[in-house]
Amino acid sequence: MNSTDVHIEENGPRDGLQNEKGAFTLQERVHLIDHLSRCGFPRIQVGSFVDPRRVPQMAHTDKLFQLIHRNPHVTYSALILNRHGLQRAVDCGVEHLSTFASASEAHSLKNNNCSVEKGTERVVSLITDCRERGVRVQAGVMSVFGCQTEGAIPIDRVLAMVSRFLEAGAEEINLADTSGFANPRQLKEVLLEVQGICSLPLRLHLHDTYGFGMANIYAAWEMGIRRFDTSCGGLGGCPFIPRASGNLPTEDVVHFFEAMGCSTGIDLGELVTVVAGLETKLGRTLPGRFSHLPSFDVSKPACIPTR
Amino acid sequence: MNSTDVHIEENGPRDGLQNEKGAFTLQERVHLIDHLSRCGFPRIQVGSFVDPRRVPQMAHTDKLFQLIHRNPHVTYSALILNRHGLQRAVDCGVEHLSTFASASEAHSLKNNNCSVEKGTERVVSLITDCRERGVRVQAGVMSVFGCQTEGAIPIDRVLAMVSRFLEAGAEEINLADTSGFANPRQLKEVLLEVQGICSLPLRLHLHDTYGFGMANIYAAWEMGIRRFDTSCGGLGGCPFIPRASGNLPTEDVVHFFEAMGCSTGIDLGELVTVVAGLETKLGRTLPGRFSHLPSFDVSKPACIPTR
Repeated sequence: MNSTDVHIEENGPRDGLQNEKGAFTLQERVHLIDHLSRCGFPRIQVGSFVDPRRVPQMAHTDKLFQLIHRNPHVTYSALILNRHGLQRAVDCGVEHLSTFASASEAHSLKNNNCSVEKGTERVVSLITDCRERGVRVQAGVMSVFGCQTEGAIPIDRVLAMVSRFLEAGAEEINLADTSGFANPRQLKEVLLEVQGICSLPLRLHLHDTYGFGMANIYAAWEMGIRRFDTSCGGLGGCPFIPRASGNLPTEDVVHFFEAMGCSTGIDLGELVTVVAGLETKLGRTLPGRFSHLPSFDVSKPACIPTR
Repeated sequence: MNSTDVHIEENGPRDGLQNEKGAFTLQERVHLIDHLSRCGFPRIQVGSFVDPRRVPQMAHTDKLFQLIHRNPHVTYSALILNRHGLQRAVDCGVEHLSTFASASEAHSLKNNNCSVEKGTERVVSLITDCRERGVRVQAGVMSVFGCQTEGAIPIDRVLAMVSRFLEAGAEEINLADTSGFANPRQLKEVLLEVQGICSLPLRLHLHDTYGFGMANIYAAWEMGIRRFDTSCGGLGGCPFIPRASGNLPTEDVVHFFEAMGCSTGIDLGELVTVVAGLETKLGRTLPGRFSHLPSFDVSKPACIPTR
């Protein structure tokens, strides 16, 4: 991976589908992941090992891991929130996991049914367990950039959480803009602080709630961030924050970076067929732009002025 | 205007409405402009003086200027493309005009039925005429960042056009991303070149075709650009480029800048009621985000982390 290269983790099968009311069958989820596996993603978040009563769309993620056709170039990851989820993930041989705690007391209570402190402890303990079991683990902070209920989040709280995740042995830190409140100026301030205490790669999980997503991606890229979560077609968001959908459309972010001369390794043509398949299944147009516009030469997405 | 302040020219009544199939009556256009006049915009592009056979939505702009209720804090502007349009504008006492030529041969032929050279000459001559008649004039270059037919545009061509507009006496230069092809990296390169020859204020007219609009706004802001064209609700685009709608939604751009701590002088609450009115008239949801989300405290749009 060159310094200009960008690492996209595809979150559609997890963060995308968990926000869809129409259920996807297990076979449809397998088909989606297998198709994404042919697009060149370095990592795909396949699903989550959470309570199926709370997130029915993510039931049977165990079986999913057995049924997908693994591409050796792809890391297949999943989300866990507690030890039970970790056990289920380990039982089906998952090699990479993500786990998150919220920096907002209000959101933590809603999403994880615990305080920020308790959620942080839980993540620390999960990181330790993952390391003991030889599973690579990314740890993340949700609601870093503000919370609909709580408002602004003290940066020191975020830094304390990140420090503890680093000490516990997380291999990557993820900062999530759960409410979509981040703006580039604030994002840069926060990144500067976090970069000051964290020498590990940082990843951003940005929501496009207010239309600031791509500007935030760019601001982060300027700050040296090269890892982003996105969702094919623009599926997704957090089901516990009303209307806080959704993730940035993967194809638009890939197009954006390729236009700027950064390589993602992702085949845009193939990805567009994934989005088309999702739209057929869902019976509606997804928010991504690239797949709906007359495609000019995909190999030359940028119109860099020439002399 | 402080250095952090941002000057938004509202383009909805012109660039927005000219792309709407459902005709707005003259009275509906008056109502829209009068409502926008109460939002705090420093400038509103009321309409264009162009051939009503080509752009029927812009017919009777002369009458419009007689019927609107002028707010003394607002500059009411219009678009012209030729001397006939200028005469019509002068006849109804318009104080500020914009005129554009395209930097793409293909787009120039389609949009203005002439070569780039001929279009440039026409704009130069219009600037001279405006100055003679005491009308303030902004001159712009369309398709600066690439053209769907022609591809990349040589930067020297753009610079030559800007130079000639400056020599002729334009008071402001506008760079338009007609196809929505601009990306922040390229935009900054182009801005650097144009800023190198132009000491006048630059304005950007960005289209959000590929979802790069807000990132481009931010990149331009970083380069010191403080003037932008937007369209309430996100109406608009160029009718001669298929699907090249549209302008960035004004309310989202205002929200974006206010979140970053920059003042626009625009009343977001009032603007949301303009968008709601447009949606009722059009019978569909417009693409802007801000007006459709639960409004948290508009006076504190940013969640800047605190210590």
